[in-house]
Amino acid sequence: MHSLKSLHQRIKDAFSDTRFDMEPQRLYQPITYTLDLGGKRLRPVLVLMSCEIFGGDIEKAVYPAMGVEIFHNFTLLHDDIMDNAPLRRGNKTVHQKWDTNTAILSGDTMFVIAYEHVAKTDPALLPQVLDLFNDTARKVCEGQQYDMDFETQASVTISDYMTMIRLKTAVLIACSLKLGAIIASASERDAEKIYNLGIELGLAFQLQDDFLDAFGDTSKFGKAIGGDIVTNKKTFLFIKAFELAKGDTLIQLTNYYFDKEITATQKTEGIVNIYKKLEIDSIIRQEIEYRYRKALEILESLQFDRSITNEMVALMQEMLGREK
Amino acid sequence: MHSLKSLHQRIKDAFSDTRFDMEPQRLYQPITYTLDLGGKRLRPVLVLMSCEIFGGDIEKAVYPAMGVEIFHNFTLLHDDIMDNAPLRRGNKTVHQKWDTNTAILSGDTMFVIAYEHVAKTDPALLPQVLDLFNDTARKVCEGQQYDMDFETQASVTISDYMTMIRLKTAVLIACSLKLGAIIASASERDAEKIYNLGIELGLAFQLQDDFLDAFGDTSKFGKAIGGDIVTNKKTFLFIKAFELAKGDTLIQLTNYYFDKEITATQKTEGIVNIYKKLEIDSIIRQEIEYRYRKALEILESLQFDRSITNEMVALMQEMLGREK
Repeated sequence: MHSLKSLHQRIKDAFSDTRFDMEPQRLYQPITYTLDLGGKRLRPVLVLMSCEIFGGDIEKAVYPAMGVEIFHNFTLLHDDIMDNAPLRRGNKTVHQKWDTNTAILSGDTMFVIAYEHVAKTDPALLPQVLDLFNDTARKVCEGQQYDMDFETQASVTISDYMTMIRLKTAVLIACSLKLGAIIASASERDAEKIYNLGIELGLAFQLQDDFLDAFGDTSKFGKAIGGDIVTNKKTFLFIKAFELAKGDTLIQLTNYYFDKEITATQKTEGIVNIYKKLEIDSIIRQEIEYRYRKALEILESLQFDRSITNEMVALMQEMLGREK
Repeated sequence: MHSLKSLHQRIKDAFSDTRFDMEPQRLYQPITYTLDLGGKRLRPVLVLMSCEIFGGDIEKAVYPAMGVEIFHNFTLLHDDIMDNAPLRRGNKTVHQKWDTNTAILSGDTMFVIAYEHVAKTDPALLPQVLDLFNDTARKVCEGQQYDMDFETQASVTISDYMTMIRLKTAVLIACSLKLGAIIASASERDAEKIYNLGIELGLAFQLQDDFLDAFGDTSKFGKAIGGDIVTNKKTFLFIKAFELAKGDTLIQLTNYYFDKEITATQKTEGIVNIYKKLEIDSIIRQEIEYRYRKALEILESLQFDRSITNEMVALMQEMLGREK
């Protein structure tokens, strides 16, 4: 069995071997730039891991795994235009480094390249693989739309929020796992189970991201604390706080929300303190734990050998920042 | 054999039967709006026609044909953002009616929906169909990039231009025809032939569009004359004129090009007169005729029954505005 580390290496090598130095340069340079920014490559590793645990040949999963990662990077590229984000992984976003038109069209091209990679699979499996990928891509777009809708929507409930992150984040994690299972010719039942595991894992993953924005360690997390807070982003923490806050706390929270004079640091500190007072940190941790436990339960129900289960658990822990 | 008219009707019905009234509305409304704007639906009709002439069942080609049309409309939607176009088919463009973010994301979603439709084909044919569609989509993006590059590029030759329109316009016409052939299980050789026919037809089609911008009849053409001229768009006419103009004519042409004080009508009239003086109208007509003849030659080499050939010729003539 390949170690988690060797799966990471296999994906790293696959991307190193793939160049897009073709014409027209202005179309392909931003693609190379985007893919060279790196990232943890969690999704393609999930594809390989799933293929492996179901007894498949990971070499047959490398291209589709890359397809998922290229798709993910395409969505980030277009999301960054929509969010007018200046930075991605510490570097200028494509629409900042080049311009919006370049970012739109290079993104569209990455989307095609994602399909090209996903298509490099056993022809007999292609209908199933393509259906899964189409369904996922469609849902990710829907999730991004809900996320944008939330910005101007007066009332967003925790249930709305969970629906949104399920679409925007969790289905791609689930798709990655199911893709590996399909390529390994797992049974339909098992493929569905690992998909459901992916949904729970994906929800936990996004909630963990929300948690770290308020309570994370900047040096570890790699991005500034409070980014979501400063921009009034409707995260789990934000929605829960407005749900629970009463009296003076609600007034305080609302003031922070509307105050445009306050510094980013003051706002972040003030709101984090309210989160702590309302025990939102504990509530979100419970929710993450609940999702993680559900994912583990599904994994146990698949009855792999212990060593296989352990590798998968290691990957899940890595995703949730629980490495030893 | 289905008449050309009945193929048009079949596509019209297929689009009437397809609704996208789902959630989130802000994502799907612009898609419905875009597809309801109509257009001539030439590309899906080409798919059905090609399927028909190769003896296939057109019902098996309806979904992929719609996929091509949805893809085409997706490219228009994103191109309109990039060109900052206010109108499409006499109606507000999506980024004007809603906003740029909506246009980007609805476009991305249409792209997925295009793939979903293309995927609804005989599983045994899917690898071939998907390869063709991916290859086409990639080339269309490249064509759009070249077109944008031309805006700021000092020197664009006729050869550059032909490469650009081959990618941006002709390959999708060619893809439509080849798609129908594949679905009808035509031989690889015949599928390649009809693809090449599509390239010639597509080049003629784009050149005809260029021609009509300067020399068309507004009432028939449906868009204002001189749109390309006013915006200094590097069309075949423009490039050829700068290639041939000398002395005073070149000075006149250059003045019109840079003059920002002049009215749109004056500019259009002035430049059209120069085109006439340089006989550019005759040159482009020859080029269109040359491409059309090449397409006809390929059609003849396929040795269909005369009645079949005639239906295909009727469609080619419709595309080039040569209906009786």
